[in-house]
Amino acid sequence: MSKTSIGFVGLGAMGFGMATHLVKEGYAVHGFDVFPASVERFKAAGGIPASSLQDSAKEKEFYVCMVASAPQVQSVLFGDDGIIAALPKNATLLLCSTVPASYAQSVAAELTSIGRSDIAFIDAPVSGGALRAAAGTLSIMAGAPDAALEKGRFLLQEMSDANKLYLVPGGIGAGSNMKMVHQVLAGIHILGASEAQGFAARLGLDAVKTAEAIKSSPAWTWMHENRLQRMLDEDWHPGASALTIILKDVGIITTSARQSQFPTPLCSTAEQVYLSALLQGYGSVDDSSMVRQYFAEPIIKVSSTKSDEEMAEALQLVLDLMEVTNLVAAAEAISFARYLKVDLKQFYTLVSDAAGASRQFMTKGLEIIEGLGQGDKGSETVDAASSRLEKAVQKARDLHCPLNLGNAALNVLFMAKRSGLGAEGSASVVKVFEH
Amino acid sequence: MSKTSIGFVGLGAMGFGMATHLVKEGYAVHGFDVFPASVERFKAAGGIPASSLQDSAKEKEFYVCMVASAPQVQSVLFGDDGIIAALPKNATLLLCSTVPASYAQSVAAELTSIGRSDIAFIDAPVSGGALRAAAGTLSIMAGAPDAALEKGRFLLQEMSDANKLYLVPGGIGAGSNMKMVHQVLAGIHILGASEAQGFAARLGLDAVKTAEAIKSSPAWTWMHENRLQRMLDEDWHPGASALTIILKDVGIITTSARQSQFPTPLCSTAEQVYLSALLQGYGSVDDSSMVRQYFAEPIIKVSSTKSDEEMAEALQLVLDLMEVTNLVAAAEAISFARYLKVDLKQFYTLVSDAAGASRQFMTKGLEIIEGLGQGDKGSETVDAASSRLEKAVQKARDLHCPLNLGNAALNVLFMAKRSGLGAEGSASVVKVFEH
Repeated sequence: MSKTSIGFVGLGAMGFGMATHLVKEGYAVHGFDVFPASVERFKAAGGIPASSLQDSAKEKEFYVCMVASAPQVQSVLFGDDGIIAALPKNATLLLCSTVPASYAQSVAAELTSIGRSDIAFIDAPVSGGALRAAAGTLSIMAGAPDAALEKGRFLLQEMSDANKLYLVPGGIGAGSNMKMVHQVLAGIHILGASEAQGFAARLGLDAVKTAEAIKSSPAWTWMHENRLQRMLDEDWHPGASALTIILKDVGIITTSARQSQFPTPLCSTAEQVYLSALLQGYGSVDDSSMVRQYFAEPIIKVSSTKSDEEMAEALQLVLDLMEVTNLVAAAEAISFARYLKVDLKQFYTLVSDAAGASRQFMTKGLEIIEGLGQGDKGSETVDAASSRLEKAVQKARDLHCPLNLGNAALNVLFMAKRSGLGAEGSASVVKVFEH
Repeated sequence: MSKTSIGFVGLGAMGFGMATHLVKEGYAVHGFDVFPASVERFKAAGGIPASSLQDSAKEKEFYVCMVASAPQVQSVLFGDDGIIAALPKNATLLLCSTVPASYAQSVAAELTSIGRSDIAFIDAPVSGGALRAAAGTLSIMAGAPDAALEKGRFLLQEMSDANKLYLVPGGIGAGSNMKMVHQVLAGIHILGASEAQGFAARLGLDAVKTAEAIKSSPAWTWMHENRLQRMLDEDWHPGASALTIILKDVGIITTSARQSQFPTPLCSTAEQVYLSALLQGYGSVDDSSMVRQYFAEPIIKVSSTKSDEEMAEALQLVLDLMEVTNLVAAAEAISFARYLKVDLKQFYTLVSDAAGASRQFMTKGLEIIEGLGQGDKGSETVDAASSRLEKAVQKARDLHCPLNLGNAALNVLFMAKRSGLGAEGSASVVKVFEH
């Protein structure tokens, strides 16, 4: 005997995993996708194929929307033959697509304006990749009125890891904002991994040894560790994480930041490099291919002819670049999160165990969140941090190596110094964003 | 009967023009270059070939050094068989190469430390291109003690236009600093011309019509007007102004800015794009090829299918992009000039009639130089300017068009807003740099 019926739209890599996991858990999942082949594949995996959007929604008390973008959401929800018109009274609708918070809010407003405020609507973007989707262990950042969250909670729990379901205070839009500020870090660190390894190659450093040093240092990021093997192997076709995916997420960030008129110098810089790479034809390949923006050959081919002492000195430049840039990235993400009234303690917990994590975020980021002046006694000053980064940036310039994030971060630190923050703890660079 | 004898080193494109002009004016010019072919060519043009550096300097009361970079200067002046050792007592030495001010100062210090303070040394970088070099109508920015300037003045006058010899107060290094802060604008506007025309192409606008509109608008820059034809014709080989030339000048700026720990967000951004293009193989070609970083095809091929109204709207985005970005560029250059204690009135005069000129510099830049609060009554606010730029940047993002300078400028304006400057005149964006 089946559990309750669930409608589902969007059977791509992530959506397919989520929907088939629900099938395995015993639900009668009625799935739809614009690609008939995806529906067939879902049927083969035990799902119930829906013949149309309306068919997928009719008489379904629960519905999950996992299409790729806000325009697609708008079309499937409110277009001709749309989901909303077909959903029964008091249905629960989970929007799991990554969309701008303002868009999620506009869905709620539209539901009200067309007289469907009976629908319990939950803004619930997910994170974690296709494998975790299929295992029902995603991270989910869910925001909605309490009554809606109560109705949808069991379904959120089915799809997420027990420790990774974040009920985000703030109602509709809060889940999307939480995901977005997390992606600020992800978007910067993806490029940062390539920038650091490309710079190391320019310095004549061995790629694997450099990576090992990064992993065990304060420069560590989740993204660097995650992307490293694909970067070394140049295993880009088909990409496990196509450039266009992070570009879409970063586009949501910079668009929202512009709407808030909030500066995001590092994330914007990363976006510009991604757009340049898109123009060069890298859109569909794995984002670890960004290393090509810094080094023209496979980095694995670099074999060092330096002395141990020279190697240690060069390696330190790479570590300093990443560490100080990641500090500024943490400041940018946290200040934007604070501006958006995101719950910072929850943000910290989420990031520390997700793709946006970095050792800098977990240490200096915590200082920033807990309030400056407590943790920063005796810590490195803005002057000292900028001086370390300056050496790396100058060396890269001498080698004619682009260092997009490093330069952007250094300019932020110089702004901090111009504001008189030079002698304060390095975490106070956040004040540049918060005046 | 010849006028006085002059030694000359560095017979490249600029140096050859300068040296042969002096020959035409009746001087006995003894020229040397590391490339024997350049010396032969100089001989064919009426010059006196020197067989060595020492030969070019021996018994010459006046000497002009026009090699390409500071390391080359160091080598020809102080290396084995160097110029200084060969120059007679009380000789006058003009250093016309573009070098960091700190390097020019180190030359003066070295002259003193080796007991050759008898040499009248003048820091005198030039600007204007090979044609003006050959015509003796360069811009020259000369800094030195008064006594030295007095001795070298006739020679500076021979090589420069009557209105374009700038005797820069501040002694050795002041000339180089003046040239450097001018190049902040040149370095940004070269990329800005490509960014604007590339964005226009993405918008489906006709390249020539767009260029005409820019020329007659507040978005005008000297660089855009100068580079336009080569950009339209894709006349890049051999470049009239190779990417590596502006990259060298920009490198002097960002290196000096780092030494001063002064933020140069736009100039640094331009440098990063130049470095990326260098990696793509654009180093030796004309810098108007930077348009390729924004549009994959020749922009002249774009034929618009838009209505007049749509065209006007799209064109306005291009004009807004350039105008507001140029305002921030003016603020960056002027604040850096002020920080370096460059004479701002002279800077204004020089820029207005040189390659760094822009209509924004000549209007808003003047406001900034004369002191805010006088000219800015009733003028556009920071809020309004950033809002115009924001629309352009968002549109570019929607089109997946990189907009490196536009994004960097917008982040500076957002920083200004975060500092509480939103309601002030747009020229007060300079306060971000000056706190």
